[in-house]
Amino acid sequence: MGIVGINSDAPRPPSTPRYGDGSSVTVSSEVLALQLAHRSVRRFTDEDVSEEHVRALVAAAQSAPTSSNLQAWSVVAVRDPARKARLAALAGGQAFVEAAPVLLVWVADLSRARRLAARTGVTVDATDYLESTLIGFVDAALAAQNAVVAAESLGLGSTYVGAIRNHPREVAAELALPYGAVAAFGLALGVPDASEDAGVKPRLPQGAVLHHEQYDAAAADAHLPAYDGHLGAYNKRHGLAGVWTERVLARLAGPASMAGRHTLRQTLADLGLPSR
Amino acid sequence: MGIVGINSDAPRPPSTPRYGDGSSVTVSSEVLALQLAHRSVRRFTDEDVSEEHVRALVAAAQSAPTSSNLQAWSVVAVRDPARKARLAALAGGQAFVEAAPVLLVWVADLSRARRLAARTGVTVDATDYLESTLIGFVDAALAAQNAVVAAESLGLGSTYVGAIRNHPREVAAELALPYGAVAAFGLALGVPDASEDAGVKPRLPQGAVLHHEQYDAAAADAHLPAYDGHLGAYNKRHGLAGVWTERVLARLAGPASMAGRHTLRQTLADLGLPSR
Repeated sequence: MGIVGINSDAPRPPSTPRYGDGSSVTVSSEVLALQLAHRSVRRFTDEDVSEEHVRALVAAAQSAPTSSNLQAWSVVAVRDPARKARLAALAGGQAFVEAAPVLLVWVADLSRARRLAARTGVTVDATDYLESTLIGFVDAALAAQNAVVAAESLGLGSTYVGAIRNHPREVAAELALPYGAVAAFGLALGVPDASEDAGVKPRLPQGAVLHHEQYDAAAADAHLPAYDGHLGAYNKRHGLAGVWTERVLARLAGPASMAGRHTLRQTLADLGLPSR
Repeated sequence: MGIVGINSDAPRPPSTPRYGDGSSVTVSSEVLALQLAHRSVRRFTDEDVSEEHVRALVAAAQSAPTSSNLQAWSVVAVRDPARKARLAALAGGQAFVEAAPVLLVWVADLSRARRLAARTGVTVDATDYLESTLIGFVDAALAAQNAVVAAESLGLGSTYVGAIRNHPREVAAELALPYGAVAAFGLALGVPDASEDAGVKPRLPQGAVLHHEQYDAAAADAHLPAYDGHLGAYNKRHGLAGVWTERVLARLAGPASMAGRHTLRQTLADLGLPSR
C-alpha cells in the first residue's frame, strides 16, 4: 500500500502492552506510539501548567471535528484552589482533582445557540431533543480527546473526571453555566509525577470490540475470559482486586451503583437540556 | 516551565489557519501541528486501506480513556460495497460514504454488559439510564477521535457521519447490532485525493469557547460577529453560502431541521438504550 504519512519514517512497530497479551501493531507512527503508551495520570508534580499550554490544548480541541460545525461545547479552566477543592468534593472527593494545577471542565453547550436565537428573535427547538444533548456530549468528547493527546505530546498528563456528573446542578452553579450548558466531564491536568506507579492498563482484546461487516456477539465475547486474566494480573500488580467482568457488573448493577447519576435526565432537563 | 515532551524539539510554533484571524499557538509539538492541520476528507483515491491499518487505528482507539474502564463501545468495519451503499442511503445519501474504501461504524455498546449479566444471572439496571447512554456515546467518541488522529498520522483522511443516526433502526438491522448497541456515528476512511479543494475550516475564536474560573457568556459571545466574517470568507472561497450564526439557527430550528432525529429517544429505547 502506497500510503505516505508524515510519520512514515517512524521507528519499528511497537509491541504494545495495551492488550496485555503480547499483541503488536504492524503499522505505526510517532502519534500512534504516543497513543498506545497512554495512561491515566493522577499524581502531579508541583509544576504549574502555563496559560500558553492551556491555549495550545484548546486549539487542538477546537481542531477536532464537530457535528455540522455547531461547536456545541465550551471549556472552563479552573485554577483557583478553593474552587478546585469545591469541585473535587462534588466529584466524588477524589484528591487528584484538587491536586491538579488545572482542572478543565468540558461543557456540553447548547446555550450559545439559545442566546443567538434569542438575540435574533427566532427559536431553536431542536436543542430540546436528546439528539442535541448527544451532539453536545460527543462534540465535547471529540474536542477533549484531542486535548488529551496534545497534552501528552507536550509532556503533560491527565485523567478524565466523569464524577463531575454526580452533582451537575451544583457544578453548574459553581461555574456560572447558563441555561443549556451542562458539565459533561472534567479533565485533571498537570505534569506527571514519575513516582506514580501506574502502567499501561490492558484493554479488551481487539477481537472483542472490532467486528467486520456485522456484529458477531459470540465471536467477540469469546475473548472476555482471556481479558479477565490480563486485567486481573494488572490489577494484582497495582494492588487492586477483581477481574473485569466483576467490576463491570458491580459498576452497572443499578441506581445504587451510579453515585446519584440515575437522576441525570431530570437534572439535565432542569439545566436546559430537556433531552426529549 | 520545565516541561519536556517527547516532541519538545519540534519545529517553530505554527501560525494556524484554524482561527482564520492570524492567531498562532505559542507552544507546539508534531502532534499538535498535525491536529491543527486537520480537515475533513470526503474525496478518496481508489487505494484501499489495509486491514493492518484498520487494526492499528482500533488499537489507538482502544488506548483512549474510557469511563470506569467499561469500554462501552464497539466498532464495525464495513467494506462490502453493497452494504456501504445501503448505509450511505440510510445516512442522508452522501456519496463520500459509499465511495470511502472503509466505513467504520462506531457503536455505543451496553449490550456486552447485558450479555455478561445474563450469563451470570444478575441484572445491570444502570444500563437503562441516560447516564449509561451518555457513557456509551462519549466512550465511542473518545475512541473514534484517537483513530482519526492516528489515521492522519498514517496519511489517511476521514469524515464523521452523524447522519448514521437518521435511521438507527435500519442501521442496527444492517449491522446485526444486538439489544443495547446503537450506532453512534460513522467514519468514512480512505486515502485523501489531493484534488479535493478543502482547506482548514476556521473555528470560533478561542475566546468564544474558553472560559476562566466561570462561564462568561457576554465576553464569549462578543467574538461571534468576527467569526461570522472569517467563516463567511471561508465559505465564499469554497462556494458555500451563509455565515455561521445563520447556519446554526437553521440547523437547530426544530424537528423539521433534524432529518428525523427528533425521534431518536424513542428509537434508542426500542434498541435497548432506554435513556431514563
